Amino acid sequence: MSMPKGTSGSKVVVLRWGHRPRDLRVTTHVALTARALGASGFILADVEDKSIKAKIDEVAVEWGGRFSFEMGVPWREAVERWKESGGIVVHLTMYGQNVSETDVMHKIRSSHRDIMVIVGSQKVPSEFFSEEFSDYNIAIGGQPHSEVAALAVFLDRLFEGSELSRKFEDARIGVLHSPRGKRLVRVDSGLSTSNEIV
Amino acid sequence: MSMPKGTSGSKVVVLRWGHRPRDLRVTTHVALTARALGASGFILADVEDKSIKAKIDEVAVEWGGRFSFEMGVPWREAVERWKESGGIVVHLTMYGQNVSETDVMHKIRSSHRDIMVIVGSQKVPSEFFSEEFSDYNIAIGGQPHSEVAALAVFLDRLFEGSELSRKFEDARIGVLHSPRGKRLVRVDSGLSTSNEIV
Repeated sequence: MSMPKGTSGSKVVVLRWGHRPRDLRVTTHVALTARALGASGFILADVEDKSIKAKIDEVAVEWGGRFSFEMGVPWREAVERWKESGGIVVHLTMYGQNVSETDVMHKIRSSHRDIMVIVGSQKVPSEFFSEEFSDYNIAIGGQPHSEVAALAVFLDRLFEGSELSRKFEDARIGVLHSPRGKRLVRVDSGLSTSNEIV
Repeated sequence: MSMPKGTSGSKVVVLRWGHRPRDLRVTTHVALTARALGASGFILADVEDKSIKAKIDEVAVEWGGRFSFEMGVPWREAVERWKESGGIVVHLTMYGQNVSETDVMHKIRSSHRDIMVIVGSQKVPSEFFSEEFSDYNIAIGGQPHSEVAALAVFLDRLFEGSELSRKFEDARIGVLHSPRGKRLVRVDSGLSTSNEIV
């Protein structure tokens, strides 16, 4: 897929911490949001959930692009591996620096480094806030809301909106945006023809 | 609460359509996102769900601000009432005009009218796309993701980020943003003193 502007080629991976079975739909939304808004991969830390993987794989096959999905890897191992490879870690938390009141997004973009974005679910361990763990603790406002919303705003600001215009390679299906109605296009590979199917 | 810039005083209400019991957590995230990102009310159309109302009320009491919560009102009635009072209706759908490729946000902001934002869950009725129903069909990108994410990006762009710096009146509790650690402040009303409680 084409690279969003604004990050100079930085790769973004989203790590979901603290997933429980009851989080099935919310965690699925986190992963779909990561994919749709410019991240190149998703890690479901510590646990496995095959129904989430199946859903994300299904979307990725139909709608194209490259998106990695890992699950069951211990969070500490995933973070250490990321840091060893030179990436930075951003922990999204309402207690962190407010994205709208600091220059933190500019700092992150201008670092030109790959970014792991951590989103929690239940209460996260206090070490997530430490320098050992996170390079930045960033708040999408100071009110309780949603890790899906926080991730979406973070990615939209990181990529400065360009992520919503990206092309996803090898898609079988795509949307034709229009002011009215629903237009889906099935792309017949090799023929480059499109048919309105809805 | 202070009014976010960029909308010239427009009031935003979010209507959730198609809620089912299994959507409990996602719909709660939609409502919390609406409140945290500058909307002044939420309508759970057609059905009632007391556990969602209880959660939102609890947050509003603790964290302050004015936020209306309605449920059980038929969607058609809610939309007609809104339009009769002069408001516009924005339907968030991946099939609509891409927010990153059109000037639709500028048009909406410059209309200076109150805005009802509709977010669906399951497949929405085709009439949602019609002129009778929606003034704008807006896509937050053309990939499947999440109504929570779509709402978050829409509100962040509508209010141009100012929504994340708003003060919520009469809050009992608030965050002290910081690069490290968790700092919650309990506001003792009348005394204006703050104590770090976490």
